[in-house]
Amino acid sequence: MRNGWIRGGAAWVGVGMIWGGVGETVAAVESPAAPAQSLILFIGDGVDDHQLTIARNYLFGNVAAADGFSFDRFDARAAAVVQTVSEQDGVTPVYVGDSASGGTAIAAGTVTSRGRIATTARTDRDVPTVLELAQAAGLRTGLVTTSSITDATPASFVAHIALRYCEGPGDMAGMRGGVRTGCPDDVSTAGGPGSIAEQIAASGVDVLLGGGTKPFSQPTASGETPLQAARAAGYSVVEDRAGLLGADAKRPLLGLFGPGTLPVEWAAQGGAQAEPVRVSATGEIVYPEAQTCVPNPDFGNRPTLEEMTRKAIELLGADGARFFLMVESASIDKQAHARQACGQIGETQALDRSVQAALDFAETHPETALLVASDHGHAAQIVPIPSMFAALPPMLGPQLPPGRVAVVKMPRGGVMGVSYGSNQGYAEEHTGTQTPVFGQGPGTESVRGLIRQADLFDVMRRALGLEVSPPQP
Amino acid sequence: MRNGWIRGGAAWVGVGMIWGGVGETVAAVESPAAPAQSLILFIGDGVDDHQLTIARNYLFGNVAAADGFSFDRFDARAAAVVQTVSEQDGVTPVYVGDSASGGTAIAAGTVTSRGRIATTARTDRDVPTVLELAQAAGLRTGLVTTSSITDATPASFVAHIALRYCEGPGDMAGMRGGVRTGCPDDVSTAGGPGSIAEQIAASGVDVLLGGGTKPFSQPTASGETPLQAARAAGYSVVEDRAGLLGADAKRPLLGLFGPGTLPVEWAAQGGAQAEPVRVSATGEIVYPEAQTCVPNPDFGNRPTLEEMTRKAIELLGADGARFFLMVESASIDKQAHARQACGQIGETQALDRSVQAALDFAETHPETALLVASDHGHAAQIVPIPSMFAALPPMLGPQLPPGRVAVVKMPRGGVMGVSYGSNQGYAEEHTGTQTPVFGQGPGTESVRGLIRQADLFDVMRRALGLEVSPPQP
Repeated sequence: MRNGWIRGGAAWVGVGMIWGGVGETVAAVESPAAPAQSLILFIGDGVDDHQLTIARNYLFGNVAAADGFSFDRFDARAAAVVQTVSEQDGVTPVYVGDSASGGTAIAAGTVTSRGRIATTARTDRDVPTVLELAQAAGLRTGLVTTSSITDATPASFVAHIALRYCEGPGDMAGMRGGVRTGCPDDVSTAGGPGSIAEQIAASGVDVLLGGGTKPFSQPTASGETPLQAARAAGYSVVEDRAGLLGADAKRPLLGLFGPGTLPVEWAAQGGAQAEPVRVSATGEIVYPEAQTCVPNPDFGNRPTLEEMTRKAIELLGADGARFFLMVESASIDKQAHARQACGQIGETQALDRSVQAALDFAETHPETALLVASDHGHAAQIVPIPSMFAALPPMLGPQLPPGRVAVVKMPRGGVMGVSYGSNQGYAEEHTGTQTPVFGQGPGTESVRGLIRQADLFDVMRRALGLEVSPPQP
Repeated sequence: MRNGWIRGGAAWVGVGMIWGGVGETVAAVESPAAPAQSLILFIGDGVDDHQLTIARNYLFGNVAAADGFSFDRFDARAAAVVQTVSEQDGVTPVYVGDSASGGTAIAAGTVTSRGRIATTARTDRDVPTVLELAQAAGLRTGLVTTSSITDATPASFVAHIALRYCEGPGDMAGMRGGVRTGCPDDVSTAGGPGSIAEQIAASGVDVLLGGGTKPFSQPTASGETPLQAARAAGYSVVEDRAGLLGADAKRPLLGLFGPGTLPVEWAAQGGAQAEPVRVSATGEIVYPEAQTCVPNPDFGNRPTLEEMTRKAIELLGADGARFFLMVESASIDKQAHARQACGQIGETQALDRSVQAALDFAETHPETALLVASDHGHAAQIVPIPSMFAALPPMLGPQLPPGRVAVVKMPRGGVMGVSYGSNQGYAEEHTGTQTPVFGQGPGTESVRGLIRQADLFDVMRRALGLEVSPPQP
């Protein structure tokens, strides 16, 4: 961060010039007749049409809305173009985003470069987020995730920092893979707001649930950890499912249920991995053995995303208060990176069940707006098993995917082939596809056709009737 | 084909039991207050959210609806689940379709196995198509494509045959890659309706435009070619752009502008191909040289898809007649199979311009319904260039896509990486993602949320007020 914007105050410097992103026209977003009482935003990290189809095929069959995900039945549906720019010039489109640029686009309506948390590409200016606007307007706020609460998606709503990897005080001068990943301008002793964990501890957000004991336990130069700072700021801290379920609304709540990314709900039985398809000595194509999806034996005593969502809604909505809540199913992305089809499916189910929790609340609180969005596309593709070209003569070469393949045993019979073909190295890549958006409730009527990811900031802001004021002298 | 259904007549045998596909609930499709005067269905073969994003990024930038494709601005938008079943049991879901199963789902509302043209999986029963219902109701009809007019997509609207490869009389006993690809039950001397070309020649469809001189020139057992049969049935035959532009509405029109698939509009300069990413001797990742998209030098004297569409609309809509027209941009799929990113982009532009031609007609004929749909997903994915993991230490392996990559030089600066990672052999595979659907005009209000591909038959049938009658004694 480097600008005159004052957190929680009214002086939103630089908003005017950032508003339209990289010269695009902001879609015509209408303000609803009456603002929503509350808004719950879900982010399926790495969700695109393909990842949704993979999970829906497994969970429900290849069915239409009536039998599919809860959000398949939402009234509003759109596609969102992902916009990211080069950090070098702050203007050239890059076509594939990450959770930091996508999170910043959604949270703050600003097109930025990959890795940046609510700051502008190249110029490193802080940009206000919908959560901060909601706070300033007196709404309660919450962030829920299955990743570390300091990870890029939740961070984009509450922190402002040059690099997503500066999660805790110990990361501020870090190196990753030979590249400097630190955030020297943001270190608190240099007058900056500190690491993401430090910023979260000072945020005043009412409910914070996810992983993150690691970044929260690293001491700053003053010797204080973000966890100590959070307690000093009045947070009640819980570290397991029982602690969460027993929490009340008397104090703001910080739930840290693991060191970083939380264990996922599903895994492949026996730890099966996606593997390359082989050609046998006799020239036969040999697919990896079919995987059976089972509950993850290492799930531990963390709460589910659905439990976190229900608790967050209960605490935030107590006494009829207005609130803004962001809920992220983070490991759809992380399991896709790791080529874990069963893991992806289980985390997409977790997203769906959490949305259902919000629908249950909306049933008795109809002035609640719900949005389901995504930050970027991902690599997994459903491919034919065997190849559609399997009958071609051998002189045309072996007909098999070049990357790793997971063959998933389907609960309704047969198998589904999932190909991971974007990177043969460390992990699969994000992809640049447009992503789906679903909306229901007051103010979500503008979620239609093709929008920019950054338009969602405006949709949320207007749905809640939040104003972005020009700087006051 | 093997059943009692009489083409063009009123006895639609078997419709009742096929109606709901494989036991799915048909979505609630509403009939409009007043039926549409005419309906134009566009099929982008192999189009999914990812293929659309690739083309839009190149043609318009990564922009929202106002600046994107014509159909990005349509009022109605949905996603369609692709449904295909095993030919063995006719029931088990297969998850990846082709143009025959997808075409049959859209044209006839019937979930079938890959390769089948308006016939049921396993039981080989003919199913009536929306084009045939329109004909029976007295509407003019037309089929336009950039593939052979005998290829799977157009064939699904007008022919009934066990296998898409039986395009001409010479294909009826054919072999492909060691597999029997013939259609012995459908041979005309065995009492069948003959090859797809023979069925088209006898169809009475008013406007037929595409490739196909090859299948239309093969003699049947009687010695007559489908082309001769078409002329005998009254068709005026044209074979180039000038012939098309000079055609009038006095006689039905058969335009065959090449032997099979027509040349595409765009190509990579110098015939550049997608290639594997290499690791140099010094360990550097070397991407293929960036491709420049140029007009295809081998385009020849065929009309463009836009020209074919404008002419078809002019002929069918003459004197205010009602009509049903299907227009396919076929080579979005074929260029994706061949890993030709520039080719894909050019054919998607052709789709967009053809839709614009229909929008121009709809402006003066507002009772025209427009639909844009797809038969299945495809392989190409936008990936980061360089890898998001490029900075990782060498011990984690080279970070590069396992398949072939096209690096496309973008008109607004920079490059876009397109990865083809579904098959390392002959051609890329179709994928199983849900696909986008766009609608505008009377009767397209049901195009919302998540529908089945087969629901589109019902949408079209109801939009035009066409009845599927039970068999009459």
